[in-house]
Amino acid sequence: MSWTTCENFNPDIPDTRILLYNSPDLNPVHLEELGLFRTIIRKSNHVLVTDTTIAKLHLNDLTKCLNSLGIHYNIYTVKPGEEAKTISTYADLLSCCAQYSLDKKSTIIGFGGGVVKDIAGFLASTLFRGVNLVQIPTTVLNQVDAAIDWKQALNLPHGKNLIGSMYSPSEVWVNPAFARTLDERYLKDGLSESIKIALCRSAPFLHTLLQARIHDPDWLASVINESAALKAETMKRDSEPDDGVKQYGHAVGHAIEHLAQGKYGHGEAIAIGMCVTAEVALLAGFCSEETVKAHYDAFERYGLPTRVPGWLTAEAAWDQINFDKYFLHGKMYSMVLKDVGEAVEDSKGRAMLPFHRDIVIQAIERNRKRFDSLRFI
Amino acid sequence: MSWTTCENFNPDIPDTRILLYNSPDLNPVHLEELGLFRTIIRKSNHVLVTDTTIAKLHLNDLTKCLNSLGIHYNIYTVKPGEEAKTISTYADLLSCCAQYSLDKKSTIIGFGGGVVKDIAGFLASTLFRGVNLVQIPTTVLNQVDAAIDWKQALNLPHGKNLIGSMYSPSEVWVNPAFARTLDERYLKDGLSESIKIALCRSAPFLHTLLQARIHDPDWLASVINESAALKAETMKRDSEPDDGVKQYGHAVGHAIEHLAQGKYGHGEAIAIGMCVTAEVALLAGFCSEETVKAHYDAFERYGLPTRVPGWLTAEAAWDQINFDKYFLHGKMYSMVLKDVGEAVEDSKGRAMLPFHRDIVIQAIERNRKRFDSLRFI
Repeated sequence: MSWTTCENFNPDIPDTRILLYNSPDLNPVHLEELGLFRTIIRKSNHVLVTDTTIAKLHLNDLTKCLNSLGIHYNIYTVKPGEEAKTISTYADLLSCCAQYSLDKKSTIIGFGGGVVKDIAGFLASTLFRGVNLVQIPTTVLNQVDAAIDWKQALNLPHGKNLIGSMYSPSEVWVNPAFARTLDERYLKDGLSESIKIALCRSAPFLHTLLQARIHDPDWLASVINESAALKAETMKRDSEPDDGVKQYGHAVGHAIEHLAQGKYGHGEAIAIGMCVTAEVALLAGFCSEETVKAHYDAFERYGLPTRVPGWLTAEAAWDQINFDKYFLHGKMYSMVLKDVGEAVEDSKGRAMLPFHRDIVIQAIERNRKRFDSLRFI
Repeated sequence: MSWTTCENFNPDIPDTRILLYNSPDLNPVHLEELGLFRTIIRKSNHVLVTDTTIAKLHLNDLTKCLNSLGIHYNIYTVKPGEEAKTISTYADLLSCCAQYSLDKKSTIIGFGGGVVKDIAGFLASTLFRGVNLVQIPTTVLNQVDAAIDWKQALNLPHGKNLIGSMYSPSEVWVNPAFARTLDERYLKDGLSESIKIALCRSAPFLHTLLQARIHDPDWLASVINESAALKAETMKRDSEPDDGVKQYGHAVGHAIEHLAQGKYGHGEAIAIGMCVTAEVALLAGFCSEETVKAHYDAFERYGLPTRVPGWLTAEAAWDQINFDKYFLHGKMYSMVLKDVGEAVEDSKGRAMLPFHRDIVIQAIERNRKRFDSLRFI
């Protein structure tokens, strides 16, 4: 039994906490000792949101554990995938919450990947103007990034995450044992966010990640736990540099993800985005070729894509970057790195720096050329 | 042209403001000078939410003014009444917002009574995880209370305001000129919240309210403005005593409002609630008969109800009070008054004090007897 916690994960809300606990054995006595589910009031009814895939794999274990702990809950199961993240799922869930006699002291438990996390989170943020939220992420992407956050969202037919709220979970239980059943592609997709945080914050952690021992459960668990702890730190401070870390490579990555229409997972798209962002930093004179190479090497160790796809022109990518949340007055805003683990800051301590169209287009072209030249080696 | 402002209405969000402006003449030049709509970005599209009644009475004037100021917006009109405050209205509005090309810098403008305020407020709080919100309340209840608040809500078939968020408007434009077209009953219903704030905070303001010159537009405007300013003060501090003021008489009032199924307006129900709460304070030895009488006198000046209705047993009222948000461990929590303008606080400075079933039931009976004895005078 190995575990650690990040106490006061959200400094604005006392008693919030991330429990990093890696055990395939969900012994309720152990979990209770660790103080898991201490924010779930035993006298109230609760709702557990999950999807059919996770339900088949892990729900039996979890329900045994919740039942032994005397927690009363109803289960609401959605279909896997983004299609479930709609207003109509939300409306149906609200009706169920009313039917199940939920009250102000009830908890919404999200048990699954990023989609379940968002549905559960948005529901919790708006039911009775906000009830308790406990997240049990089961995918690597959710464990190392999405669940360790205040962002909750639903989709509209017009676009992803157009509806949402900022709302903090009181407990996030990161148990890498749940992630072992993932397809290798999704596992690697999630680890792309771990590489992001290592590139931005910790050269030693990047060194660990280069081992890529994804079939070693202990190694995987320690990597997930370290990533979650590092993400929790960026949330705790929530400064501009921290925001820069969260968004690293995302301006370019989101554009590719959107234009590829499902061809890339989020982690895959931001892997390319980070490589392009490193090229931007090199062109701007902020970092050395060695730092850029560290980006490509890390993602390639996992077989993650690093090249802007051939069908996408640099101009089309730039036009899409214009829709980025941080885009302002014709410039892309992004954090860039001086070195692995070290961000560039301007004289006022700002980490989100503006970049012109020309430099971004040039960076995309450099990213492409790197591969073209490789062909001739 | 008379106007005042409450700057930094929400101290957590810079540049929030309430503009108290009383003029039937909505001259855009004057309004621009006052800095009205300064948070509405001229380059973006916006949505104005209103209802058909208000649209008929005032929309023409407002659109002229918005157009002159170069504000681009689409109008979304709901039917008047609580029935519009549903998830389905919300979902439809979200689709419209996407169709109208709203962006992160867009504003949702609520123009109407409490229902429109809630729909606009909840929409603004969740669209793109929160966009700018400007409220233009047109009813007295909304001008003196509902719009000067962070609470936003929708109804479920199972109950009122079961969904919601805490979200602050950046601007509230309180223009009593809009309220002049109200039915007398709704006008008085709204003034019940003014009496609440006067009873809790200001004996001189209660004295003004006793004049009840509701047909004098200047008097009415000054009363609305003073109430809004006092409410803004309680929001600015948002301490337990301030919460006590907001909730004064509401534990009993909400129970009566719910059980009467539409027979009473909100202001009418809380008028009775405040009278009963004054009886509780008298029975607990906190205030004199004179203070209790001040409650009855104020509401009676406006023909507002002050007596728990005959069809409602004290026991049934108590059972419903159990559902109050502040009800805890078998006790009703409420602020009580020592004197007009002065709340009781316990040794730890707490203003929400616990009251047993017996004292509340006795208070309801005292409230009834007061009227029975009157019959024999």
